[in-house]
Amino acid sequence: MAKKTLTKPAKGTRDFLPEDLRRREYVTGVIREVYEAHGFVPLETPTFERLETLLGKYGDEGDQLVFKILHRGQQLVDGIRQASLHIAEPGNIVVGRSGETAAGAEKLLADMGLRYDLTVPLARVYAEYPGKLPAVLKRYQIQPVWRADTPGKGRFREFYQCDVDVVGSPSQVVEAEVTGAVAQCLERLGFEDYQIRLNHRALLRALIEVAGIDVAQETEAIVALDKLDKVGAEGVLAELEQKGVAAEARQQLLDLVLGSPTLEQLGARVAGHAGGTAAVAELQEILRLAAVTPAGARLCFDPTLARGLGYYTGAIFEIQVKDLAGSLGGGGRYDGLIGMFSGKDVPACGFSIGLERILVVMEQRGMFKDLGAGVDCVVAATEPDRVEAALQLSYQLRQAGLRVELSPKADKPGKVRKAADGRGVPWVVLVTAEEGSALLWSRAKPEVTDDRVPEAALAERMQG
Amino acid sequence: MAKKTLTKPAKGTRDFLPEDLRRREYVTGVIREVYEAHGFVPLETPTFERLETLLGKYGDEGDQLVFKILHRGQQLVDGIRQASLHIAEPGNIVVGRSGETAAGAEKLLADMGLRYDLTVPLARVYAEYPGKLPAVLKRYQIQPVWRADTPGKGRFREFYQCDVDVVGSPSQVVEAEVTGAVAQCLERLGFEDYQIRLNHRALLRALIEVAGIDVAQETEAIVALDKLDKVGAEGVLAELEQKGVAAEARQQLLDLVLGSPTLEQLGARVAGHAGGTAAVAELQEILRLAAVTPAGARLCFDPTLARGLGYYTGAIFEIQVKDLAGSLGGGGRYDGLIGMFSGKDVPACGFSIGLERILVVMEQRGMFKDLGAGVDCVVAATEPDRVEAALQLSYQLRQAGLRVELSPKADKPGKVRKAADGRGVPWVVLVTAEEGSALLWSRAKPEVTDDRVPEAALAERMQG
Repeated sequence: MAKKTLTKPAKGTRDFLPEDLRRREYVTGVIREVYEAHGFVPLETPTFERLETLLGKYGDEGDQLVFKILHRGQQLVDGIRQASLHIAEPGNIVVGRSGETAAGAEKLLADMGLRYDLTVPLARVYAEYPGKLPAVLKRYQIQPVWRADTPGKGRFREFYQCDVDVVGSPSQVVEAEVTGAVAQCLERLGFEDYQIRLNHRALLRALIEVAGIDVAQETEAIVALDKLDKVGAEGVLAELEQKGVAAEARQQLLDLVLGSPTLEQLGARVAGHAGGTAAVAELQEILRLAAVTPAGARLCFDPTLARGLGYYTGAIFEIQVKDLAGSLGGGGRYDGLIGMFSGKDVPACGFSIGLERILVVMEQRGMFKDLGAGVDCVVAATEPDRVEAALQLSYQLRQAGLRVELSPKADKPGKVRKAADGRGVPWVVLVTAEEGSALLWSRAKPEVTDDRVPEAALAERMQG
Repeated sequence: MAKKTLTKPAKGTRDFLPEDLRRREYVTGVIREVYEAHGFVPLETPTFERLETLLGKYGDEGDQLVFKILHRGQQLVDGIRQASLHIAEPGNIVVGRSGETAAGAEKLLADMGLRYDLTVPLARVYAEYPGKLPAVLKRYQIQPVWRADTPGKGRFREFYQCDVDVVGSPSQVVEAEVTGAVAQCLERLGFEDYQIRLNHRALLRALIEVAGIDVAQETEAIVALDKLDKVGAEGVLAELEQKGVAAEARQQLLDLVLGSPTLEQLGARVAGHAGGTAAVAELQEILRLAAVTPAGARLCFDPTLARGLGYYTGAIFEIQVKDLAGSLGGGGRYDGLIGMFSGKDVPACGFSIGLERILVVMEQRGMFKDLGAGVDCVVAATEPDRVEAALQLSYQLRQAGLRVELSPKADKPGKVRKAADGRGVPWVVLVTAEEGSALLWSRAKPEVTDDRVPEAALAERMQG
């Protein structure tokens, strides 16, 4: 037998013990129920995908964060031979900084990667089963994803996403429904102080153009603008300057969004811009429709919201909770992405709830109600020759719908009660020498230790 | 936009579309419910573990089947340099057949591996959280595992296991409860013709010794004996001969087990062997206790049952279904394994249900009842200006507990009904120009297309 080994879970991952799981399952259960009430159906995809399915979809940085699975057998031997040439030959283009070298070699040594998000697998599935899926696919997917990031507080290498997406419809009813579903999830979970920030990718482009910023600088300008609530106007101006945006243009961009303009006001400011005007009209339609959904009072137009991912093409959303940096989830319309595997244009819009952050916030705020111990009662015999009777009684109580933990050996009443109490199990049934009845103890009345109850009446007493 | 790419899931893995998931979730739901009724609590562990946690636990063949995750960054560069030396130097011990070469290099290139089973992670968790877990831990775990096997019919590289284990008790009550739980799962799922074969690892050793076979040949002899029901007595004798077991000893071994001896008869045949006698007594105790559990009538002593895994130390079980080669799951007592990380001796016993085979058999035999379409009704507007009203009505119906799919755009009644019908959705609600009421269509009475119902009465009509 080996001596004690390192038994922590791998870096950035966690073991979920029963108490953790009860909380996680409670939250995913609520989310699942709300998604299903909205007519979304479940999908699950494999943990790993071919590397060519994953790479090139998340940018260079994303590619590096994909966990790759080593080739096996002869392919591995061949891969090592080739990869070693990359390392050994100084003239080879992939030799240089270690990041580049490793990235070049990775493709020779690995054939698959762990799922990085739930959107690329959805796109692959939508292309693969055209006949088996409805024309407008409303799917939800609650599964872990993996990223080879540096773990930190609340940041993991394995974490769950809870996605809803509607594929195949360009209608703004979709935006109203996905935000409505997410709002209902948050409300059922007990969130009261959240907002769903709303903006539009085409409106951001319009702002850039109206401000006179070169379209080549669009991404950098939007990234800078997104930080307005964190770094303030001065900070945004400094970043825009650093990125080489001209003084007049950067001030112009700020002027367009400062003062928390309403959607109507912003519409006036981009009035001459066709794309901007169309985007404002779409946002107005979303707000009009959302008024009859749970998201109605929560949607809040914010022209500085950008969201990192480059693939959005229309409305974008982000859940904001008071006093919390970062968001609990976000989404938007991304009409170009789903078609990447099929070569067709397919409209799509979705929302992703970040389970880990939801759990952290709910825990910090004491939002979990008592979820119980997962076991209704402990049954134990007090004499070794009564263990068989305790086993039989356990099955009778299970038959009545109770979750029963049987002690595998006879034990002293006080010891059994204390252990059950410590774990929050509400009832203890002690099978003694006396046949046909048992001692029932309740955590709610711990002082009563001599309550003898006929076996046939036990289940009712515990359930009543 | 790229042209059509290969969109199949990676080799040996599967996408689970909504209909697949309904069946999978139905089965895991039943298993979960039964396990929880037995007082088992859930555990989940990370998808990947450190390689040193996994390797050396499953034999050389198992080690090769572990999917390994490539190092990243500078560690990868260093690993390639070292691995290339292994490949390049003919004198190096790891050069030889490609399998050996790759295995030697893998440890230099990878730091983690995908979970291979649910037992090694349980052992790690049990060692890591001694204060957080009860002294006798009854845990269940339903998660996928991964093996880099050659995929085939019903054999996957990603597949689910449903494990129950009791850690920390040497009592035979545990064997009675885990087999009882598994039997109840199978019964709830509708299996009627199964048996749980029962044997004991120490009894197998006794048979080997009583037959006069060298203990060094124990494993090979047991593997040969395990094939008795497939290859018959002649086949087993031939394999034993090939493995170098003496003629008299191999005939002796066969004589000990042939003729379907009862446990009592076999006890008499190994009467002089202390370990064998103790094993027979344990099996008798298990059968005595199991008589009051759902496993009672299903347990069936079989002295030829061996099970592949070397880590069993006591009773072993295997689910056998008529007309089906292979088993639906198995388990046993393995008192030496859990302690491998803590350095302590920890008794343990468990059972693993193979979800994939259960699903295949249930499908083949038509054992699934109608699990529905996952959606109770489709709501659609017949006029574009009524889409908002349809959205509002959808939320009213959801509030009443229905799972409602809203069509994002107005459509022709016939088209909506046909699509809903094709997908098995039982109800269609059409929101027309007439306010305050809608047309209700039922899949059960498809000929009635003009049933106008007040909005307030719709939910009750569909639920009633």
